[in-house]
Amino acid sequence: VLSKGGETLTEDLDDYRSRAQSVAEPAAWDYLAGGAGAERTLAANVAAFRGATVVPRVLVDVSAVETTVEVCGTRLAAPLGVAPVAYQRLWHPDGEAATAAGAAATGTLMIASMFSSVRYEQIAAAGGSRWLQLYVLRDRAILLDLVTRAEAAGFTALVVTVDTPRLGDRRRDVRNSFAIPPHAQSQNIDPATMALAGIPAPGGSALASHVDATYDPGLRWSDLEWLAERSGLPVVLKGILDPADANRAVDAGAAGIVVSNHGGRQLDGAIATLDALPAVAAAVAGRVPVLFDGGVRHGVDILVARALGADVVLVGRPPIWGLAAGGAAGVTGVLSRLRAELELAMALAGRPRLTDLDPAIIRRAPR
Amino acid sequence: VLSKGGETLTEDLDDYRSRAQSVAEPAAWDYLAGGAGAERTLAANVAAFRGATVVPRVLVDVSAVETTVEVCGTRLAAPLGVAPVAYQRLWHPDGEAATAAGAAATGTLMIASMFSSVRYEQIAAAGGSRWLQLYVLRDRAILLDLVTRAEAAGFTALVVTVDTPRLGDRRRDVRNSFAIPPHAQSQNIDPATMALAGIPAPGGSALASHVDATYDPGLRWSDLEWLAERSGLPVVLKGILDPADANRAVDAGAAGIVVSNHGGRQLDGAIATLDALPAVAAAVAGRVPVLFDGGVRHGVDILVARALGADVVLVGRPPIWGLAAGGAAGVTGVLSRLRAELELAMALAGRPRLTDLDPAIIRRAPR
Amino acid sequence: VLSKGGETLTEDLDDYRSRAQSVAEPAAWDYLAGGAGAERTLAANVAAFRGATVVPRVLVDVSAVETTVEVCGTRLAAPLGVAPVAYQRLWHPDGEAATAAGAAATGTLMIASMFSSVRYEQIAAAGGSRWLQLYVLRDRAILLDLVTRAEAAGFTALVVTVDTPRLGDRRRDVRNSFAIPPHAQSQNIDPATMALAGIPAPGGSALASHVDATYDPGLRWSDLEWLAERSGLPVVLKGILDPADANRAVDAGAAGIVVSNHGGRQLDGAIATLDALPAVAAAVAGRVPVLFDGGVRHGVDILVARALGADVVLVGRPPIWGLAAGGAAGVTGVLSRLRAELELAMALAGRPRLTDLDPAIIRRAPR
Amino acid sequence: VLSKGGETLTEDLDDYRSRAQSVAEPAAWDYLAGGAGAERTLAANVAAFRGATVVPRVLVDVSAVETTVEVCGTRLAAPLGVAPVAYQRLWHPDGEAATAAGAAATGTLMIASMFSSVRYEQIAAAGGSRWLQLYVLRDRAILLDLVTRAEAAGFTALVVTVDTPRLGDRRRDVRNSFAIPPHAQSQNIDPATMALAGIPAPGGSALASHVDATYDPGLRWSDLEWLAERSGLPVVLKGILDPADANRAVDAGAAGIVVSNHGGRQLDGAIATLDALPAVAAAVAGRVPVLFDGGVRHGVDILVARALGADVVLVGRPPIWGLAAGGAAGVTGVLSRLRAELELAMALAGRPRLTDLDPAIIRRAPR
Repeated sequence: VLSKGGETLTEDLDDYRSRAQSVAEPAAWDYLAGGAGAERTLAANVAAFRGATVVPRVLVDVSAVETTVEVCGTRLAAPLGVAPVAYQRLWHPDGEAATAAGAAATGTLMIASMFSSVRYEQIAAAGGSRWLQLYVLRDRAILLDLVTRAEAAGFTALVVTVDTPRLGDRRRDVRNSFAIPPHAQSQNIDPATMALAGIPAPGGSALASHVDATYDPGLRWSDLEWLAERSGLPVVLKGILDPADANRAVDAGAAGIVVSNHGGRQLDGAIATLDALPAVAAAVAGRVPVLFDGGVRHGVDILVARALGADVVLVGRPPIWGLAAGGAAGVTGVLSRLRAELELAMALAGRPRLTDLDPAIIRRAPR
Repeated sequence: VLSKGGETLTEDLDDYRSRAQSVAEPAAWDYLAGGAGAERTLAANVAAFRGATVVPRVLVDVSAVETTVEVCGTRLAAPLGVAPVAYQRLWHPDGEAATAAGAAATGTLMIASMFSSVRYEQIAAAGGSRWLQLYVLRDRAILLDLVTRAEAAGFTALVVTVDTPRLGDRRRDVRNSFAIPPHAQSQNIDPATMALAGIPAPGGSALASHVDATYDPGLRWSDLEWLAERSGLPVVLKGILDPADANRAVDAGAAGIVVSNHGGRQLDGAIATLDALPAVAAAVAGRVPVLFDGGVRHGVDILVARALGADVVLVGRPPIWGLAAGGAAGVTGVLSRLRAELELAMALAGRPRLTDLDPAIIRRAPR
Repeated sequence: VLSKGGETLTEDLDDYRSRAQSVAEPAAWDYLAGGAGAERTLAANVAAFRGATVVPRVLVDVSAVETTVEVCGTRLAAPLGVAPVAYQRLWHPDGEAATAAGAAATGTLMIASMFSSVRYEQIAAAGGSRWLQLYVLRDRAILLDLVTRAEAAGFTALVVTVDTPRLGDRRRDVRNSFAIPPHAQSQNIDPATMALAGIPAPGGSALASHVDATYDPGLRWSDLEWLAERSGLPVVLKGILDPADANRAVDAGAAGIVVSNHGGRQLDGAIATLDALPAVAAAVAGRVPVLFDGGVRHGVDILVARALGADVVLVGRPPIWGLAAGGAAGVTGVLSRLRAELELAMALAGRPRLTDLDPAIIRRAPR
Repeated sequence: VLSKGGETLTEDLDDYRSRAQSVAEPAAWDYLAGGAGAERTLAANVAAFRGATVVPRVLVDVSAVETTVEVCGTRLAAPLGVAPVAYQRLWHPDGEAATAAGAAATGTLMIASMFSSVRYEQIAAAGGSRWLQLYVLRDRAILLDLVTRAEAAGFTALVVTVDTPRLGDRRRDVRNSFAIPPHAQSQNIDPATMALAGIPAPGGSALASHVDATYDPGLRWSDLEWLAERSGLPVVLKGILDPADANRAVDAGAAGIVVSNHGGRQLDGAIATLDALPAVAAAVAGRVPVLFDGGVRHGVDILVARALGADVVLVGRPPIWGLAAGGAAGVTGVLSRLRAELELAMALAGRPRLTDLDPAIIRRAPR
């Protein structure tokens, strides 16, 4: 029986997704579910896992399955975390506080979005492992202020998203003239900076207007070095797909990288993350941790990504399905289920330790 | 005309499947038809055969097609057997006795499940070739008792399933809160040991609870050696997918192996069995027989599996379709049809002897 | 404008197929349209052409496109012929006489089936190029008699089908309890020999009963040599898929071979003919003509098969669509259209001569 | 926000296509949307882009994206142009004048069809970059006259289509008995020469009749040399798919080539243009510009084609969707959107200059 702490885990991620879609406000659902352009990369992320199958071993003692892992000084009960998702009160009044509580309850990593709709200090109150995601705004003073607040609130790493010099062309948001409603706006950054995100842009996307106005499209490697010097926290770069960039990130002092195409929300037509992972992991060669997101919908997907080079796997949409469906309990349910599915997959694959997972156990179809 | 013993074989496996589904109790049907997780591996097993085509030879005398084979001392009229399926009275009151009768009538191998809903001695009364499948329970005394009974009842080999340290996450059973109803429970093991299998687990699977409570998840190669020493019967290991495990099985004294992913019911995401077969067969290199199951739905599939390294091919769901549709006569119909289809395929492929089948006659598409 | 002799060719093969299906008796339609087993090979024959694309040349003078070809002493206006199809009065009262008239009108090859529903002499009256297809029956006297009649009626080659030691398991015919109705029975062989083909076999196929009773499943290469010695006509072997068999056919004195899987009607699971063609053509290496059938539905398919090694391409179902839709005029329409499509394809590919077609002009996708 | 000149670009190409189909006369829509034969190549052109994904770089300064390009002496704001499409008043009363205005407004290239339904001089009045496409008619005097007029009207290059010795078999036009209605006929060539294009050919295509009567199917490389000598304008060859032809084109004095299969409207079964591009570009090796069309529906497709060897990418159907939906403003909308999507894709791919795009950034799936 899939269970955690004696509680049966009846619902799987599909169940949570269905429930979430039935309760979410349609435009908020579209903002969560959609990708950029024709959503080719969104689909490719998921499809890539269908081409990677596992060759199990047998007669290995799997009475104990060990999934704890340490990443950038953060100890986790499983190689699993919540990818940063902005404005989470779009889907539940408790927003990021509930998501953090779910992560804490399951020993997984909470990466709070810079644009949290709950104050960072409240997110920290959940007590689990927490990192803070940041975009580099044109106004560097804001950035340094947030770093200070993050340190004070016990966030133990910074995740700088580097794949968003401009916002992807998210068609659903344009069609919905989507803007962040008052109840879900950022509670951490001055209202003036955030203003455009809340004003519907007729025929356009308020979020894109906001990004155009505030993000720095001229961001370079030297800016990262500048930030790393000023931060007492390790800096992880999110959005790496090219092995050469992975190399450069390590050279520039990154404490880790996240292989990500932003869930198919930035460049439609970008490579599926699972297709990009092996070469990036080979380039990093263990010098820093490699995190991964994109298309993970089952515990065995975590096993596959681990085997192909990921140290920790992040999920973005699934915990929000849990959040929408049931607040903190829903997030806990989703993350518990993924943990339990991973443990079961490791047991059935005859690999009770994370270190047992390597590329040789995966069979990849040509794609 | 496809016929056996002068009787026309009108119905094919699809016909039996349709009839079976129409008469089966829905939850019992789901227990039979379903796989683990998103049923990716279940689908992949069948799809793998679509990528393997046969290059026939012509002008070979096929007036006689020879399909007899000997495996672990058991002589069969065809390289075909019934994979172990538990609790067969779920689908017909005659249960395993009818299935064994069908196997006996067709000269094929009956592998009775440890969890038969008919006593082993009644199964034996059908008189055909019979092996007994076993899981290794935590309580080894039960195991040794079953071995003794199996020998006494004329079972000529033991098949130890090694891919089930825990039960796969079979979503259909969870959704149905499926438990084994009284009329189909095990008739061979003490009721206390079997109790959990019969008690619905709200939001979970009774079978998973049963497995968690009774199977040994710490099973190792040394346990197999222990069993082989205590059994007067050859021990075949079922659930091998990795060539290194196949090697080790031979070294550990296995009398044979079964390439199997448990019909897609254990690790969803596991490699399709036909994809795993060639490397496993190469590792075994003829030292012991290689049996195979997974996705076989046509006689030509048996030919293909034979050509890629299988000595005997097992079918799990198809004979149960026959059982549900018509008891022993239905099982006989399904197995007769597969035998007849195999003979026809061998004739049309210009390979009238099993030894004519080798990898060179198969063209595999990239997958 | 696609035209022949000044007449516009409005309808394409899809149009003829639709019309044919709408007028044909359903069981006769199934006999024509169906394949063996799950019809995997039937579908694969057609699908194989989707994976082969053409790289055209430009600025070649294509004001004249030359498609004449000579095969086994028979001169054709195009490398196109009618594959043997039995019992053609199933689809039109004029049967094979109309089909032969269509072939004659278009300068293409008529291969009459041994089991024609019109007397060979009437078929010959159409006046075009004609070969006769034969199965080798257990009663060799019948065979020799037919050879004598064929020679007398001006058939200029024999096509011996070698892929039918038994009949494929054609499920549609079994489901329909199909037998040849009186109006479509053979008009060339004594009624006693043909009797079983006309008697419905409850739960089986009358044609399979007929084949079991009359064909020789022990046919060998030495029988072919025996026939070649007794026939004044060149003997072409139909049903070759393996390069080694192609080699042996040439050694045994075959005047040509036909790469064919019997339109997917014999071994379901057999290789698609286009996938088999290149290796067979390489083995033959020009020593005898290579004919081809299977999945050809467009003129460009003829071009592709030619480029991959076929000298002449046969179509089976398409001319019968024409026959059912409109008798001799329909057959003429189908064959004219295929000729016109081939000429147009050659012009647009910048290959105005058949000898311009070689494997280098084809790009094959992995399959 | 996707925008141009401060105006938001709300609609994407799918929106324009839907609107265009809803307002177009059905037979005119079919003439635009359809391809030859079974439309395999039409579909393959689009599908080929799904198998080519982009590996983005990060932390590159993309505050300025540079897309200007010079091709055959013509400076463009983006590597984008309108492929020649005949008879554009079929879809809007302003026809080619509107299309040219849209191209001029967006700094992209207008290639006017020889068979424009608006006089070349009016097209020229739009004032943007303009080339003239030509077929070589049997009557060379017409050709020389058009060249003279083109030069006088400020067209700066000639594009000679070389893939149309005959017209492809466009089934939709045949089914519609399509002919060019009076309001959309050529306004540049004498009515006698154009007559057949306007007369419905029962059961055939008026356009095919017109091509058969007027085009020279005997066109050769020497004719091209003859034209190049007589023209003061650079001559670009459109319809090259074979690397050997590309080589020969350069040797024959072509100022550029267009990799094209005529939008799937000529040889159905021809290679997808994206599959043909890399080898052609390698053969040209930078000696002359390589233009490209076929299947481009998104800005990222332009990026991909550039990376695989195209200098300038043409779109045929999309600007006509804009034309039908909204005249010049619609064309401007479509081209602006493609430009904006390209710039966004370049920014998100971390390649702000066209010269940053090379094959190494593309991952191709096997196909």
